[in-house]
Amino acid sequence: MTGQDHPTACVLLIGNELLSGKTQDANLKFLANEMSKLGIRLEEARVIRDDIDAIVANVNECRARYTYVFTTGGIGPTHDDITAEAVAKAFDVELVVDPEAVVRLKHYGKELNEARLKMARVPEGATLIDNPISAAPGFRIENVFVLAGVPPIAHAMFASLEPVLRRGATIHSRSTEVPLREGDFALELEKIARAHPEVEIGSYPFARDGRYGASLVVRGTDLAAVESVLAEIKQTMAKLIASREAGPPRP
Amino acid sequence: MTGQDHPTACVLLIGNELLSGKTQDANLKFLANEMSKLGIRLEEARVIRDDIDAIVANVNECRARYTYVFTTGGIGPTHDDITAEAVAKAFDVELVVDPEAVVRLKHYGKELNEARLKMARVPEGATLIDNPISAAPGFRIENVFVLAGVPPIAHAMFASLEPVLRRGATIHSRSTEVPLREGDFALELEKIARAHPEVEIGSYPFARDGRYGASLVVRGTDLAAVESVLAEIKQTMAKLIASREAGPPRP
Repeated sequence: MTGQDHPTACVLLIGNELLSGKTQDANLKFLANEMSKLGIRLEEARVIRDDIDAIVANVNECRARYTYVFTTGGIGPTHDDITAEAVAKAFDVELVVDPEAVVRLKHYGKELNEARLKMARVPEGATLIDNPISAAPGFRIENVFVLAGVPPIAHAMFASLEPVLRRGATIHSRSTEVPLREGDFALELEKIARAHPEVEIGSYPFARDGRYGASLVVRGTDLAAVESVLAEIKQTMAKLIASREAGPPRP
Repeated sequence: MTGQDHPTACVLLIGNELLSGKTQDANLKFLANEMSKLGIRLEEARVIRDDIDAIVANVNECRARYTYVFTTGGIGPTHDDITAEAVAKAFDVELVVDPEAVVRLKHYGKELNEARLKMARVPEGATLIDNPISAAPGFRIENVFVLAGVPPIAHAMFASLEPVLRRGATIHSRSTEVPLREGDFALELEKIARAHPEVEIGSYPFARDGRYGASLVVRGTDLAAVESVLAEIKQTMAKLIASREAGPPRP
């Protein structure tokens, strides 16, 4: 998968609850999967605290390094929601009340009190990201996209962005499961991987019902190449299985 | 939660499968929860690719910054398992065959072929971390602990480390759920948070069966303080609920 012109991205998952063991993240897998479809290469993700300095440092480091930065979490009305303030600080701009965001919050029909008005504040120069579920918008400033943390809202916000994101070639993925331990096929798989630098091959071991196996995954932008390498892997594994069954009993 | 002497930590989740959308991470929440019990403050986690340069850069940045670094993933026998090699490079030492690791792999009873021998290679100066499930050990070098990626193995390896880790005061956590939207209690909760800097208060909204609510969490090392602040929060929320029920109908 070298030499492709892929936009790159980093996801910042913001929230103490993800680092305390209270909450299982339910955003990264979804966002990663959507980016694969769009041909955006997700280079890394970071889980960071609700801490102004940590958010500023990570936003600035990642926006300089990647085509896109997506954040989740910390844009609600409570005292621990500080993402908008931190992103404004990262860009060295003021946090301002966005009139359109106020209109959306009003139309949503809940009392527009001081706490809720906080959700209408965005960094100066930001544009809103639609929230079709509970009105309070996310926002975009330059290449940084600030999404909610609640998974259905984060997912809907990301979906609304798809038309504006630059796409690379779709990254296709095909996989097969083999009833072998990794140590039994690692050398053969490595040979195939070396012969096919145009795809990425991953091996993911599992144990289910006391039986061991591995999921072998081929990924790449050329679907024909992905499918052909997968076929080669399947053939090689079938031979290995046959030779083990035919071979002398093992200790 | 200021002024406490807590060891700090970073978790590096290593694996392309976590960034492609193929696999849901199942290690961070467990590790975070265990660290809370041990009084180790997990400052951040990073999900990074099976890429030598990325692993080297992140290991070196994090081991300089935190008391402990825990990595998961990339220590199996296949070509995409490059964590040991990368950690050796980060410490600028050779990757060497550990005789004790060879013994453990032999005793496990699977054919000790060239692929499996790869799992006996550790950075020079590293000590082994027990793997009670499938023998192939993790390792520790200075403040970096290299664990397997398969969740039951990662969890067992971490458990085996607990006696050697420096502990801080246990971080206690108590929570309550309220049938209110965050915008309805954010100001009152903020007042309580400001009055009690000795604890950390988080608010996590949810929607279940079409009903909105929030989980309010108080964390800190002083259990009496945690419980007293939680009681104050419950009292305040009960008043808010009562006043809403007694008040005039809302639009």
